[in-house]
Amino acid sequence: MTAPDGGARPIDQERAITTAMEHVADLIAEGYQVLLTHGNGPQVGNLLVKNEIAASVVPPVPLDWCGAQTQGTIALLIMNALDGALAARGLKGRSAGLVSRTLIDPADPGFANPSKPIGRYLPKLEAEKLAIHGQIWEDRGERGWRRVVASPQPLEILEVDAIKQLMAGGFLVIAAGGGGIPVVRDAAGTLKGVEAVLDKDLTAALLARQVEADLLIIATDVPNAVVGWGTPQARAIGRISVVELRALAAEGYFASGSMGPKVEAACRFAEGGGVSVVTSLDQIRNAVTSVEIARFDVGTIVVAS
Amino acid sequence: MTAPDGGARPIDQERAITTAMEHVADLIAEGYQVLLTHGNGPQVGNLLVKNEIAASVVPPVPLDWCGAQTQGTIALLIMNALDGALAARGLKGRSAGLVSRTLIDPADPGFANPSKPIGRYLPKLEAEKLAIHGQIWEDRGERGWRRVVASPQPLEILEVDAIKQLMAGGFLVIAAGGGGIPVVRDAAGTLKGVEAVLDKDLTAALLARQVEADLLIIATDVPNAVVGWGTPQARAIGRISVVELRALAAEGYFASGSMGPKVEAACRFAEGGGVSVVTSLDQIRNAVTSVEIARFDVGTIVVAS
Repeated sequence: MTAPDGGARPIDQERAITTAMEHVADLIAEGYQVLLTHGNGPQVGNLLVKNEIAASVVPPVPLDWCGAQTQGTIALLIMNALDGALAARGLKGRSAGLVSRTLIDPADPGFANPSKPIGRYLPKLEAEKLAIHGQIWEDRGERGWRRVVASPQPLEILEVDAIKQLMAGGFLVIAAGGGGIPVVRDAAGTLKGVEAVLDKDLTAALLARQVEADLLIIATDVPNAVVGWGTPQARAIGRISVVELRALAAEGYFASGSMGPKVEAACRFAEGGGVSVVTSLDQIRNAVTSVEIARFDVGTIVVAS
Repeated sequence: MTAPDGGARPIDQERAITTAMEHVADLIAEGYQVLLTHGNGPQVGNLLVKNEIAASVVPPVPLDWCGAQTQGTIALLIMNALDGALAARGLKGRSAGLVSRTLIDPADPGFANPSKPIGRYLPKLEAEKLAIHGQIWEDRGERGWRRVVASPQPLEILEVDAIKQLMAGGFLVIAAGGGGIPVVRDAAGTLKGVEAVLDKDLTAALLARQVEADLLIIATDVPNAVVGWGTPQARAIGRISVVELRALAAEGYFASGSMGPKVEAACRFAEGGGVSVVTSLDQIRNAVTSVEIARFDVGTIVVAS
């Protein structure tokens, strides 16, 4: 399952994760084996700003390093919070955070047309200075210029064998955070990180397929995906098939930066025969129960047909 | 085993790690199972400088987060380099990097008298500004002021079960980087990161004992620990017992910031019945062979008696 990101301040992030892990601990206490992944957008944003501001004193690090950094900190917070939440329930914590790479295709069309905005807005002059070093910055109107990078398709989570090995030992594994660290493999078999960002939800669907999970839960801020969001005709989506949901997506009902990739991820996992749920964090336990008893009345539940 | 840190620039770090992993891959190719740990001093130093310089724009993150960040990036580089080096030898890479916490005692005497210098030198006025927020800065003479933190004793690597589970599956595990992320456990069982640094060599010895390793290799820049370093009487230490080595240490032969903790770590592991080797990275394979055939003529080899 995926959990929403925390805020910008360390204490806010810690609190958000502690709250999230209460819900996850409830699931574990009921006997479910959970494999966790997470986003890292705000955290990578902070690291990029630090990179820029300190560039004259400390060499900036590439985007794949930023991803790896956030996997470290977020796994740390999750492990601490989860072990604590489990201890409070009389259970011994057995969590494990894996630094995880995701294989991508260097010929992915995303690289020809980088479109994913990252980091902060800058005035034109500052953006142009950074563009000299190979970064791509776009004029975003009144708020200024913003860096854009490729967001290629995740092909394979390279750490899947390690994930399975830990799960077989009963560990609650945290893996593929931020969509995984994007790497490419050359003809000689050498792996190398690349400057790109991966979509956390699409990677979550891939991860769920690679470990043959029964259920993919995408935890977000709203209890359901909604058709006509923000209009008087707004209608929450309950149980739905992949074909029906894709048709709604094709009509443009889901925002590309938020619900869009969640819907697509839910469809990809359900296509493989699993069940996907998109719901709010405080509803994940009810949603799992609802699927378990085949009532399907909590969250947006995506099934093959 | 532990490896020396890379330089400050990302490309330097990548190169240093790629070189180091060639030697590690040689060992793996011979059939040895390797568990890797590493330092993170220069990397944490860089993160602290970024924290300071960008503090007015991005909330600084605590020291335990910095440690977690470096575990992420260094594990990433090690995994990429090692998988490549193994592929070049016709072997399939099976590496796994674990975000690792090390339990410490909140009553450790190190907290009463923080003495480990971290980050950069600052002028008095800037140091005083940071000291207001609870940091301890010391006047270090001509070069300026420097932050000091506690360096408590590592008591237990909390991820040892996960490490063992992965090793049982044949994985080359990277764990407890930078000595592990220091955490304390409260009465309720809740774990929390603390602002401290751990000695990577002492943690390496603990890790080796916890996984019941046969051999602890501490890879450094010199082929042997030396008595009378830098004097005409300099004498390289070969095979030596814990009692003999501790006697030399008590006479002040080993610098507290460099060879001192390596010698102490080697003694701690050898006390438990294992064999410790302190040598240069390019000699680790020869040193292992030398121990294997009981010749003991490469590196400083520490044995129980």
